[in-house]
Amino acid sequence: MHSTLRQKILFKHCDPAGIVFYPRYFEMINDAVEAMFADVLDWPFEDLHQTGAVPTASFQVDFKAPSRHGDVLDLNLTIKAIGGASLRLQIVAQSGEEVRFVADQVLVCIDQNGRPLRWPDAIRAKIDKEIGDPL
Amino acid sequence: MHSTLRQKILFKHCDPAGIVFYPRYFEMINDAVEAMFADVLDWPFEDLHQTGAVPTASFQVDFKAPSRHGDVLDLNLTIKAIGGASLRLQIVAQSGEEVRFVADQVLVCIDQNGRPLRWPDAIRAKIDKEIGDPL
Amino acid sequence: MHSTLRQKILFKHCDPAGIVFYPRYFEMINDAVEAMFADVLDWPFEDLHQTGAVPTASFQVDFKAPSRHGDVLDLNLTIKAIGGASLRLQIVAQSGEEVRFVADQVLVCIDQNGRPLRWPDAIRAKIDKEIGDPL
Amino acid sequence: MHSTLRQKILFKHCDPAGIVFYPRYFEMINDAVEAMFADVLDWPFEDLHQTGAVPTASFQVDFKAPSRHGDVLDLNLTIKAIGGASLRLQIVAQSGEEVRFVADQVLVCIDQNGRPLRWPDAIRAKIDKEIGDPL
Repeated sequence: MHSTLRQKILFKHCDPAGIVFYPRYFEMINDAVEAMFADVLDWPFEDLHQTGAVPTASFQVDFKAPSRHGDVLDLNLTIKAIGGASLRLQIVAQSGEEVRFVADQVLVCIDQNGRPLRWPDAIRAKIDKEIGDPL
Repeated sequence: MHSTLRQKILFKHCDPAGIVFYPRYFEMINDAVEAMFADVLDWPFEDLHQTGAVPTASFQVDFKAPSRHGDVLDLNLTIKAIGGASLRLQIVAQSGEEVRFVADQVLVCIDQNGRPLRWPDAIRAKIDKEIGDPL
Repeated sequence: MHSTLRQKILFKHCDPAGIVFYPRYFEMINDAVEAMFADVLDWPFEDLHQTGAVPTASFQVDFKAPSRHGDVLDLNLTIKAIGGASLRLQIVAQSGEEVRFVADQVLVCIDQNGRPLRWPDAIRAKIDKEIGDPL
Repeated sequence: MHSTLRQKILFKHCDPAGIVFYPRYFEMINDAVEAMFADVLDWPFEDLHQTGAVPTASFQVDFKAPSRHGDVLDLNLTIKAIGGASLRLQIVAQSGEEVRFVADQVLVCIDQNGRPLRWPDAIRAKIDKEIGDPL
């Protein structure tokens, strides 16, 4: 994997059934991707969004086991592939050894007019290096 | 389709890029499913959660076009199939004729201990009728 | 009062204690104000935010009784006073006759550079009429 | 102050005006209180909610300056006073030296039936010590 976001399951994440409400998982996924852009690609979202955006084109998510208030969750993110303007990521969320969900996400780099934009060369070089050199 | 939730895109749904932040779409999907259980199956979530829950097992979502503040979105829900304890749904979100996203969702009926529970006969009968008689 | 937003308490609003999580009340307050701007002032947020914003300067909120999943809540909004760039509102949220919370909110009209902006005359005229003619 | 929660302003916190949407501030306030209960009082919310809850009775919040994507915010929490079942807190949120908001919050300790509950002696002793010994 290429980066990990550790997130304790907090009161705000949980529903009346006492487990994480799935839209909160999608907020955590966004946080994990935002952290990867800042820490691995050195292109923080607050800079990136000055000139464009990276909206999501698709998700495939399998929920394997529920998460409860107080659990410590690791969102392990792996960059799987880069296209011209697309990026394929996988996020595996675990508490200890137990997998809670696996999410496959495709992002697209766009400009301020919403048109697909080829990833900048400096970013592409970092992503190529990450894919070729998994931790 | 079997039910529709109409949702105006509000300030709270939108991100700094001026479009709907995808975790908010998942809240809308949950609202659409909650409305279907109340209006079509006559089993409102506030009753259902007294004795069990209907967590999501998986999502496949394709985002086709962004939604903007002020758009009126229709989340059109179709019941696709029922299993012993599972339910397969499709939600197609449109603003006018433009499709914004298509979500395929699998739910599982569980008891208070988290074990899969066969859908009650009265619910199963209503779902069977819906599947056999699409609007 | 000058406008009412009716909101059923949904699964997404509730916490593990089975009652509304207070940040969700603040989302509802924002929805009630957004609805008042659209329906009473005829200045929907999606238009207003093209040229400015109406951030909140202060809140005083008293929570009187909890709200539960399935309750129907009416957020009754009254315009209390208008200043040069400020607006004082009160939102009383009730389920039937029972008051759930009372919120006093002060908004400020600002331009795109964040500077206070005198309310446009057309808006001021509508607000003056509302204040002078409570329903 | 008695505890601090550091929170980078993330994409998910911001609205189309590019600043923090105020309901997200209230989620942060809840996180800061949850962290204080875990770290200072050694009574994490995941344990506390097994036998009761600590709902909010009131808020007075003044927003002094907006927060933007990428800002680092410190939520500095001070315990101001303890009553039989109540607790008065103040949260001052700053980015560097600039105060962004000041929130005065009153919590109430309740049992599983929603009745006010005197703070347990062990918690009261820790709070008394904190109030008498500000950092």
